[in-house]
Amino acid sequence: MAKFLTNREENYAQWYNDLVIKAELAENSAVRGCMVIKPYGYAIWEKIQAELDRMFKATGHVNAYFPLFIPKSFFSREAAHVKGFAKECAVVTHYRLKNNEDGKGIVVDPEARLEEELIIRPTSETIIWNSYKNWIQSYRDLPILINQWANVVRWEMRTRLFLRTSEFLWQEGHTAHATKEEAEDETLKMINVYADFAENFMALPVIKGFKSENERFAGALDTYTIEALMQDGKALQAGTSHFLGQNFAKAFDVQFTDKTGKLDYVWATSWGLSTRMVGALIMAHSDNHGIVLPPRLAPVQVVIIPIYKNTEQLAKISDVAGKIRSDLEKIGISVKYDDKDNNTPGWKFANYELKGVPVRLAIGPRDIEHSTAEVARRDTLKKETIPVTSLNTHLRSLLDDIQNNIYRKAVEFRKNNTFRIDKWDDFVTALDDRGGFIMAHWDGTSETEEKIKEETKATIRCILFDAPEEEGKCIYSGKPSKRRVLFARSY
Amino acid sequence: MAKFLTNREENYAQWYNDLVIKAELAENSAVRGCMVIKPYGYAIWEKIQAELDRMFKATGHVNAYFPLFIPKSFFSREAAHVKGFAKECAVVTHYRLKNNEDGKGIVVDPEARLEEELIIRPTSETIIWNSYKNWIQSYRDLPILINQWANVVRWEMRTRLFLRTSEFLWQEGHTAHATKEEAEDETLKMINVYADFAENFMALPVIKGFKSENERFAGALDTYTIEALMQDGKALQAGTSHFLGQNFAKAFDVQFTDKTGKLDYVWATSWGLSTRMVGALIMAHSDNHGIVLPPRLAPVQVVIIPIYKNTEQLAKISDVAGKIRSDLEKIGISVKYDDKDNNTPGWKFANYELKGVPVRLAIGPRDIEHSTAEVARRDTLKKETIPVTSLNTHLRSLLDDIQNNIYRKAVEFRKNNTFRIDKWDDFVTALDDRGGFIMAHWDGTSETEEKIKEETKATIRCILFDAPEEEGKCIYSGKPSKRRVLFARSY
Repeated sequence: MAKFLTNREENYAQWYNDLVIKAELAENSAVRGCMVIKPYGYAIWEKIQAELDRMFKATGHVNAYFPLFIPKSFFSREAAHVKGFAKECAVVTHYRLKNNEDGKGIVVDPEARLEEELIIRPTSETIIWNSYKNWIQSYRDLPILINQWANVVRWEMRTRLFLRTSEFLWQEGHTAHATKEEAEDETLKMINVYADFAENFMALPVIKGFKSENERFAGALDTYTIEALMQDGKALQAGTSHFLGQNFAKAFDVQFTDKTGKLDYVWATSWGLSTRMVGALIMAHSDNHGIVLPPRLAPVQVVIIPIYKNTEQLAKISDVAGKIRSDLEKIGISVKYDDKDNNTPGWKFANYELKGVPVRLAIGPRDIEHSTAEVARRDTLKKETIPVTSLNTHLRSLLDDIQNNIYRKAVEFRKNNTFRIDKWDDFVTALDDRGGFIMAHWDGTSETEEKIKEETKATIRCILFDAPEEEGKCIYSGKPSKRRVLFARSY
Repeated sequence: MAKFLTNREENYAQWYNDLVIKAELAENSAVRGCMVIKPYGYAIWEKIQAELDRMFKATGHVNAYFPLFIPKSFFSREAAHVKGFAKECAVVTHYRLKNNEDGKGIVVDPEARLEEELIIRPTSETIIWNSYKNWIQSYRDLPILINQWANVVRWEMRTRLFLRTSEFLWQEGHTAHATKEEAEDETLKMINVYADFAENFMALPVIKGFKSENERFAGALDTYTIEALMQDGKALQAGTSHFLGQNFAKAFDVQFTDKTGKLDYVWATSWGLSTRMVGALIMAHSDNHGIVLPPRLAPVQVVIIPIYKNTEQLAKISDVAGKIRSDLEKIGISVKYDDKDNNTPGWKFANYELKGVPVRLAIGPRDIEHSTAEVARRDTLKKETIPVTSLNTHLRSLLDDIQNNIYRKAVEFRKNNTFRIDKWDDFVTALDDRGGFIMAHWDGTSETEEKIKEETKATIRCILFDAPEEEGKCIYSGKPSKRRVLFARSY
């Protein structure tokens, strides 16, 4: 175990924070609630971006960019939306500073007050639908399938690196459709894209479902979600896709002429996934040695470390390492050769374990002699000696194996921490003792949902898409229920 | 000439605006001074980003992300910096809205006033150097070679799509070095990267040089610039790289221990290039038919348009087009096949000319019969008929030829619009009559520079890196001068 890390089993929150700081993923900034995403953390986000962007484009979407600022009055137009977002937003009121009259420092120039305050976007439905109004006249202008990569701000009181920060990075899709069915299909398509991404790239098994009315996006008729289980037994909402009905079209008066010549309001969806996913990635897979990264999102997949006593040995090792690196890069594997001489091999081993590099190759004088390399995999920490000539084949399949193993482990963990519970006392005890996903009956009312939240801090994470019908009684009220829903405490 | 476009020779500013709007690159938003970058405009920016990002990484840089907000007090720390940026910034003073007591709409909650106002970054030196303070202790921590892709805000009174907007997108590099020489080398390296990008991707010839003291970045000891000439004879600053000396290290107390154990302040550079470059790209090459895009930055390089009278013909053409498309994509050429039936071929021809797609293939029944396609190039509007079997070879070389031709044309234009002028009257007349780059002597004083600006609106664009020594007399004051500098009116 890495000595400088808090033990995961002792203090999960501190272990997570230690990992983010010590692996140099991010740190808190001078601005309350805002983080600095450091190069290694940003490199993971870039991998996430690249894959998602490819998936969005493959499903017919294009990127665009809308203003950071939203006029205050835009928020008032959609009643539920303003209720959800007005409480936590950054407000721009002035557009100039000036020298303080006492000669010290600068002050806001009171004469440069904006006529209408501007809100830093917490999400962009309003400013985007205000533009769509001018873009859409006829069914021929539809669908609009736009995504935006952007920063957004939600003024959070309690923040945690990646998981909850006042400013965060995300993508937000905003689509416009001629029919309800098409918008509903899009909402579903995108939650499936997120699930595909989570499972196949993040190695993170997720449960797909609907949000209850209480937990829906402010302004949506339906919110679909993917929910993942972290190693401390808490749930994390990993991505959401919203069916917005005609709410925003009505709020911004966006009508179109359909094929029959009839005027109707446009149907909308929006969907988003944020830098929060970097936090999920860390929380889901890492251990007491550091981060465990699935190879498909690892900025460096293989690190090569030379072990030598003199420059002559180093020169020989560097020759071999250079060849290995170039061979691996040819088949699309990213490689770093760390021959810096100011750190010992032992320090480097620990450091790359901390940073979660999936595979480490160590090459010493004996390896040179036998044309071998020591191959260590991060997920199991197992080592073996492999002939240099087999490395390409071996590592290609090892990286796949690591990706699959991390996923299998997460599936196994979730399986062992998902419980069907029918009694209230068991429900409360389970949440306090071990957390996890709890499948329980619910009477379908917001009142019950809120009471359960008050008493246990657990929320309905989702109503599973594929939940089988099953007669039962609500875990709290005892009233009849037709299916179980997913409860958990969550991030 | 496209009828719906203003004539370039009659009203250049309106022609530019027409192009941006009608080719659907961008539009003004509901927020004063902020633009919406539409999908086609954003796709060009994505091409620019991809190339620059590759070049930055190839020169050893990594990406990171720092907060959008800068505490007001940070600005006061570097005297020149605050002077340059405080006048035009967006200020966040509150963090919450609430329902208006009269029940109508929402208002800023006066109780949610920030203790210290936050400025939306106009540039990130201050917030970044405040972080670097914690990252740098020893020479071993140097250099730091970081780039950030971000949005920034400068409150502009007169705005123009892409060229000057209150919010814009850019990249900003911020590097930290142990020695002055290394920082100076970095400053130069990055202006060379920009010049390489401008010439080889944007097909835009640029002049590299130093800014005069008046025109330097606020807080820099030296600003290097690349200057391009637009078709109306005005200059456009296309990218800048700043040698910041130890100014920001001193302002934020960033010291390091050098190899000898001595404490010293860290040396800094910063460099940036923005969405303004999309405007430059349009202004430099386009004509009265629309945009002319250099193939290396064109989102679509080849468009295929079927010409048919019935569905049977269309089916045959689509077969051939599909094959051509897949063959071209295999060699890395991006292709769009436009078989939409709600527009005529003539409309499509005009539309893709407007949008600047470098090559158009038209395929009709006779082409099917002869296994040919009509190939039209956007830059010269010339057409020829090419056998389908030769298309891959032909188009690969045609795209290179178009790229080179656009560049050559711009070089030729600049050559014809660069003047050596020695008399004040000629200087004034030249600026009024035809604009262009003017190489003239200057006495090296800020007073003279300011007078020239007042009287002619021309500024010193730069002092060329490679300006030969030449005895002369200042165009304005008549005082002795050792070299000519580059004057122009500019965007």
